[in-house]
Amino acid sequence: MSADLSQGFETLASRAEPALKAAVLAQALPYLRQYAGATILVKYGGHAMGAGHASAGDPFAADVVLLQQVGIKPIVVHGGGPQIGQMLERLGIRSRFVDGLRVTDRATMEIVEMVLSGTINKQLVAAINAAGGCAIGLSGKDGELIRARKLRRDGDDLGFVGEPERVDGRVLATFRASDLIPVIAPVGVGADGATYNINADTVAGAVAAAVNAKRFLLLTDVAGVLDADRRLIPELTAAEARRLVADGTISGGMIPKVETCLEAVEGGVEAAVILDGRVPHAILLELFTEGAGTLIRRG
Amino acid sequence: MSADLSQGFETLASRAEPALKAAVLAQALPYLRQYAGATILVKYGGHAMGAGHASAGDPFAADVVLLQQVGIKPIVVHGGGPQIGQMLERLGIRSRFVDGLRVTDRATMEIVEMVLSGTINKQLVAAINAAGGCAIGLSGKDGELIRARKLRRDGDDLGFVGEPERVDGRVLATFRASDLIPVIAPVGVGADGATYNINADTVAGAVAAAVNAKRFLLLTDVAGVLDADRRLIPELTAAEARRLVADGTISGGMIPKVETCLEAVEGGVEAAVILDGRVPHAILLELFTEGAGTLIRRG
Amino acid sequence: MSADLSQGFETLASRAEPALKAAVLAQALPYLRQYAGATILVKYGGHAMGAGHASAGDPFAADVVLLQQVGIKPIVVHGGGPQIGQMLERLGIRSRFVDGLRVTDRATMEIVEMVLSGTINKQLVAAINAAGGCAIGLSGKDGELIRARKLRRDGDDLGFVGEPERVDGRVLATFRASDLIPVIAPVGVGADGATYNINADTVAGAVAAAVNAKRFLLLTDVAGVLDADRRLIPELTAAEARRLVADGTISGGMIPKVETCLEAVEGGVEAAVILDGRVPHAILLELFTEGAGTLIRRG
Amino acid sequence: MSADLSQGFETLASRAEPALKAAVLAQALPYLRQYAGATILVKYGGHAMGAGHASAGDPFAADVVLLQQVGIKPIVVHGGGPQIGQMLERLGIRSRFVDGLRVTDRATMEIVEMVLSGTINKQLVAAINAAGGCAIGLSGKDGELIRARKLRRDGDDLGFVGEPERVDGRVLATFRASDLIPVIAPVGVGADGATYNINADTVAGAVAAAVNAKRFLLLTDVAGVLDADRRLIPELTAAEARRLVADGTISGGMIPKVETCLEAVEGGVEAAVILDGRVPHAILLELFTEGAGTLIRRG
Amino acid sequence: MSADLSQGFETLASRAEPALKAAVLAQALPYLRQYAGATILVKYGGHAMGAGHASAGDPFAADVVLLQQVGIKPIVVHGGGPQIGQMLERLGIRSRFVDGLRVTDRATMEIVEMVLSGTINKQLVAAINAAGGCAIGLSGKDGELIRARKLRRDGDDLGFVGEPERVDGRVLATFRASDLIPVIAPVGVGADGATYNINADTVAGAVAAAVNAKRFLLLTDVAGVLDADRRLIPELTAAEARRLVADGTISGGMIPKVETCLEAVEGGVEAAVILDGRVPHAILLELFTEGAGTLIRRG
Amino acid sequence: MSADLSQGFETLASRAEPALKAAVLAQALPYLRQYAGATILVKYGGHAMGAGHASAGDPFAADVVLLQQVGIKPIVVHGGGPQIGQMLERLGIRSRFVDGLRVTDRATMEIVEMVLSGTINKQLVAAINAAGGCAIGLSGKDGELIRARKLRRDGDDLGFVGEPERVDGRVLATFRASDLIPVIAPVGVGADGATYNINADTVAGAVAAAVNAKRFLLLTDVAGVLDADRRLIPELTAAEARRLVADGTISGGMIPKVETCLEAVEGGVEAAVILDGRVPHAILLELFTEGAGTLIRRG
Repeated sequence: MSADLSQGFETLASRAEPALKAAVLAQALPYLRQYAGATILVKYGGHAMGAGHASAGDPFAADVVLLQQVGIKPIVVHGGGPQIGQMLERLGIRSRFVDGLRVTDRATMEIVEMVLSGTINKQLVAAINAAGGCAIGLSGKDGELIRARKLRRDGDDLGFVGEPERVDGRVLATFRASDLIPVIAPVGVGADGATYNINADTVAGAVAAAVNAKRFLLLTDVAGVLDADRRLIPELTAAEARRLVADGTISGGMIPKVETCLEAVEGGVEAAVILDGRVPHAILLELFTEGAGTLIRRG
Repeated sequence: MSADLSQGFETLASRAEPALKAAVLAQALPYLRQYAGATILVKYGGHAMGAGHASAGDPFAADVVLLQQVGIKPIVVHGGGPQIGQMLERLGIRSRFVDGLRVTDRATMEIVEMVLSGTINKQLVAAINAAGGCAIGLSGKDGELIRARKLRRDGDDLGFVGEPERVDGRVLATFRASDLIPVIAPVGVGADGATYNINADTVAGAVAAAVNAKRFLLLTDVAGVLDADRRLIPELTAAEARRLVADGTISGGMIPKVETCLEAVEGGVEAAVILDGRVPHAILLELFTEGAGTLIRRG
Repeated sequence: MSADLSQGFETLASRAEPALKAAVLAQALPYLRQYAGATILVKYGGHAMGAGHASAGDPFAADVVLLQQVGIKPIVVHGGGPQIGQMLERLGIRSRFVDGLRVTDRATMEIVEMVLSGTINKQLVAAINAAGGCAIGLSGKDGELIRARKLRRDGDDLGFVGEPERVDGRVLATFRASDLIPVIAPVGVGADGATYNINADTVAGAVAAAVNAKRFLLLTDVAGVLDADRRLIPELTAAEARRLVADGTISGGMIPKVETCLEAVEGGVEAAVILDGRVPHAILLELFTEGAGTLIRRG
Repeated sequence: MSADLSQGFETLASRAEPALKAAVLAQALPYLRQYAGATILVKYGGHAMGAGHASAGDPFAADVVLLQQVGIKPIVVHGGGPQIGQMLERLGIRSRFVDGLRVTDRATMEIVEMVLSGTINKQLVAAINAAGGCAIGLSGKDGELIRARKLRRDGDDLGFVGEPERVDGRVLATFRASDLIPVIAPVGVGADGATYNINADTVAGAVAAAVNAKRFLLLTDVAGVLDADRRLIPELTAAEARRLVADGTISGGMIPKVETCLEAVEGGVEAAVILDGRVPHAILLELFTEGAGTLIRRG
Repeated sequence: MSADLSQGFETLASRAEPALKAAVLAQALPYLRQYAGATILVKYGGHAMGAGHASAGDPFAADVVLLQQVGIKPIVVHGGGPQIGQMLERLGIRSRFVDGLRVTDRATMEIVEMVLSGTINKQLVAAINAAGGCAIGLSGKDGELIRARKLRRDGDDLGFVGEPERVDGRVLATFRASDLIPVIAPVGVGADGATYNINADTVAGAVAAAVNAKRFLLLTDVAGVLDADRRLIPELTAAEARRLVADGTISGGMIPKVETCLEAVEGGVEAAVILDGRVPHAILLELFTEGAGTLIRRG
Repeated sequence: MSADLSQGFETLASRAEPALKAAVLAQALPYLRQYAGATILVKYGGHAMGAGHASAGDPFAADVVLLQQVGIKPIVVHGGGPQIGQMLERLGIRSRFVDGLRVTDRATMEIVEMVLSGTINKQLVAAINAAGGCAIGLSGKDGELIRARKLRRDGDDLGFVGEPERVDGRVLATFRASDLIPVIAPVGVGADGATYNINADTVAGAVAAAVNAKRFLLLTDVAGVLDADRRLIPELTAAEARRLVADGTISGGMIPKVETCLEAVEGGVEAAVILDGRVPHAILLELFTEGAGTLIRRG
């Protein structure tokens, strides 16, 4: 959030009538009660990051810390952002794409890991710490958090593009007991020790399932799932979501988002939400008001 | 809060713009952080009770539960309310008053205790439980919480009017560890086993000091301490408060309120606040916004 | 126990031969072993209270503290005593009775609760504390201990007379871990928030079952169950007790006592005992000698 | 206790009036309260053992278990008994005595340890277990409980007769937390690994001091300390005891007993008691009645 | 190990090349990992004891302490050694043997227990403590660890020769949590309180099964199980071991050793090993190198 | 270690005589005892890394895991290695050096952090995990582990080169309790949020002091401190080390190594060791044999 925007928010808050403030705070009560002690998995993505990186005054970081401070257990999975492409370009490494997936040879994988684990991950950690939390940056290698296997596509070898084979929740359990906030880069390690690049949404969903998260918040750059009249659908059962995919109402880039949510919900997550991460404090609005996006629940 | 008012609040909340809601929630962040794990002593008094009793939908009860749910440890001390006088009148027991204190003979004391511990205390407990908390009603007799001694006034025998001699925090520590919310009636027990009626503000201040509360919120029916121009003073040091008493700016019924606050602050409470308990969600506004009343802090 | 009686007891103890004292203490060994860590529910009733209230030197209070000090976990449920009737009379409230049950309108209920929770409960708490324990007075409202529902009788509306619908043992578990002695007034709260007056024996039996008490001691003003020759029956199986009810050997006021015991035993209590609470130290005699009353056990 | 005696005790107990039983049990209350959680060190000696060994029905064993079951932490130190002499005699080993102390060469020491740790200790353990406890037999070698050094006497080499140099309370602390009852044979280990025979009274006093016992009960075969008129003195301060030794009122074999008590009291024990271990249930009578023997306390 | 031998070992270690030392230490890694936190039951037997007793510099004691210090939980069961026979001979007690088992009358049993619990057990405890551990000597009487019953042989009454009926692991669990090393003498107690002498191998196997030991190391004076060509068999499944007994390859004194191992493995032990306890540091070699003896595992 | 070398080591181990193996294992005993539960800080440096990175079969990783498995608490701090320079070169970023320190502008800092936290750190984590440990990679940003400030040099602005201002041991304490092995990249965060590059030896010494490490092992590419005759000095007091620096015996690149050790020792580390990390299993040899390098201890 820019300084101007932040300034504007404070002004907004101080201008609100006491009665209005009281109303908003009081409305948050049942939601806070509902989430006390629960794990909330937040996928913080490339597009949601806006300018490409989390800064100290980022409302996203502040929201994550707020969750932890009110007794919720947040876990953050982040994606790549434009820095990977920029670095590959600076090094003159060209990438081939198959179905929107970057074919990742060893040289590319080294750069991808370096940027994900060494730059973006640490920026996000620093931003959360600056907001008053105590974040620990992890990749799937740390504590062997994410065991990966090669992603198979018919006919195409994508190189070191992987998918989660097993998520080991023990390290996360340790962190949970210590009020440390895990921030996870979407890198996995194979049984053979190879490093794999994994789609961040997929990692987020798999981790959410492994820790039985109460909510999986998939922050994107759209408002959520829209109906045939382009109006936001506030809530869907898993069955309804599958029907909308089947009848084509859900299409394009929204399909993998919805499928990731469905897998998370089938894997033990109570509900997954696709929401617009560009809205300041989107997490707070989703969790502590009537909701802000499309919630997909079991059923 | 009447059903109409409650209805109005919900409407208010739902009408607020997302940006405004986000601003209010985000503003609460540093305050929540500040109060996490802290004990907040709330004196809920006769006048603040409005119609004389806490009901299920009372925003006061909801606020207390909210505090507990966001990791704050609330303790409630309540006063008498009009029910005592009504019951004495029904029984034809006449009271004599000295300096506003009811001279309390044994027959009166029995009725006072019965109404405080048996009626008002349980109403408040039920209201907090109905709001989702787990309250336990106590008088100073339970766990020998409040050892009292006879209050001495020059020349006048006030009977069983007492003052706290010692507050035993062990029972409160047990409750603290269990997320139980103590609700305390201002009755004490003497070394001789006699029952004493104690001013509720005094009990509240003494308990606040005994548990090293971070805030002692003294809910009254005025906005707080006013300056010579009848404007609310948002904050005072203890020294400044004493000066205003000395120069007559603080006068009348506000003097004992301020003195109770000063004693609490001297006894180890970080700050005491005199605020208007008739304002819905006054506690939330005081703790999670810029404040609502007059805060007196050490110094 | 009067001061004279207490004096007499001490004299009695000091006059006993060492060999006799040793014999009594040694006999208590297997009983103490048997009850170590067990929960003992004691119903302390109107008639057992004698003059109507527990006083500081009461051997009942001393016995309860003794249990706690030797590692037993006592829970006390008390009844009403004559104070309720006296207060209703002073207020000119007339009661109608159906089958010995007081028809309880709202005005009556207010007085009943006030006397039970505000007077009798606190007297008993103070007496136990004076004897060296740490008692906490509870009604069924505290911690939502007793959820009640309206007691249905064919054709008669008894008003706010209830029966236990659910006993929530969590608060009692907290107290158990802290050596606090719960003292419970027989008041329950309905799903609708209404206050209900419940028969104290019934409450005691329901709480005994909810906490899987090892013994449910029902203190009354008779020696126990008598056989056809008016001799005390020391022990009965549940089946035998039912047979004696069926054949009329057990009759009159003893029938509901026995039925409460049978319900407790069916609900998980190891054995229930009907005994004469007017005998000084009846609890000690029942638990630590060959017994003193009629024990009803499963089978 | 012989079967006849045991039989007699039960008859005695069952014949006592309920009122008398209640009086004895009620008298025990303040004592039980006083000793709850406290460590009681019992020296169980050769003469107190009577026929030379503890048997399964021994009231001593029953008393030790009773203490543990009412929340007291007993530790037993035993002495030698006639078995040592009998075994030395069977093996044809002659002993020389200096000041009543057996001069202990290596061959003698082997037999002494064998009988103490292998026979007497295990008999006592078995007796306590048969009475319902969970005893663990220890010598000073186990867990290096007692580090010993050679006892020096002017002019005489007593061989492997030692005195405690250091008692390591850690193992006892482990047992304390587990309700295991330590039974200790008076054998110590030197810095050089040699085995030492130590006077059992001395070991008992040193262990009592090391664990800050509340009472050190020195069971002997006399009633206690007698005054000049041969009447039992119930209680002495340390200063008074020293005066009685100095003026010759205390003489002969009672002197080392009293000195051991004085050392224990100076070492941190609240009070030491010399009492007649031949009286059945002497421990119960001492702890739970007005006392039975001579108590020496600090001062 | 004699001083000369010990000296030789140190020289050996210091002469080894760094690369060789590093190789040996590094080889131990996977084994250490495998045994971390596991219970290892070591039977330390008469023949393995060599000269008949453990001395302070014994490499056996050092090995046991090493296990404990690297996070393994050792339990030692010892046998009799020549001291029992010597003491019986000194006392002129003659023994009759049936199938190699000493017929044990009451007088013999007293001596057997005395030597086992009072001499050998304490020597071993002292040796382990001298090596830096914290050992506690136990017999089956302590904590009622081993409940025994009379061993039945067709036609012969062996007297107080018993077999384990039940091993109570609770005391061992307490020790396990406290880093205390149990050292157990093969003596049991009957339901009737009688003392029984039990074969030490049998006790060791029964304790190993009761605590679900990962390894049961049966130290003997042979290299292990030999094949038809007198070569050591490094590993056998239970089925293979049974076959070798059936076909006569395993014969003589090795049969009961193997059967004890089979019972332990069937009772829950992961593997049992018969190995030569006379080899210095045999335990270390077995656990931390390729093995040294014959391992019998389930299957 | 190359596959050939690893192969050679195994051969070496299997060829060793049992007696020799036993000797080496037994020699490790007193050292293991000494280090049980202790924290060992290992600086794993650029030159020690040999080919520039830790691989899966690296004996360094195996050693770290061994330490953890025998109850020692290792913490690893790593340095940069040649990868930083290679990456800067690939990107065409030129560096200026002052006193051997790379002047670090913002563009350089981004690359340094990326390679340290994203590449080298994760390689080491993966290598330790592959060897059976559970490592977590950290930079000074994670959990705000290392607060840095700008390093001041007279006259030269080195840019984002920092020094540790404060090491926050809380996160390390959490890991310690969970058997997680921290692997730390030498990056710090300033009070202003800026990222600083810090000398890895300096970070290692500061962390060692902050956690009161028992040993600080500084792995280098020389054998240790040499005397005037170029012979290795096995041990030095801090005072002796300072004297050798003053008289010129210690010179060149060894001076800052020794000074870092001295600071660690003054900060609370028991002893620091400079040793040759190129020797396979150097850590094992240093800790579990007579030592391998120069140990500097307090004094």
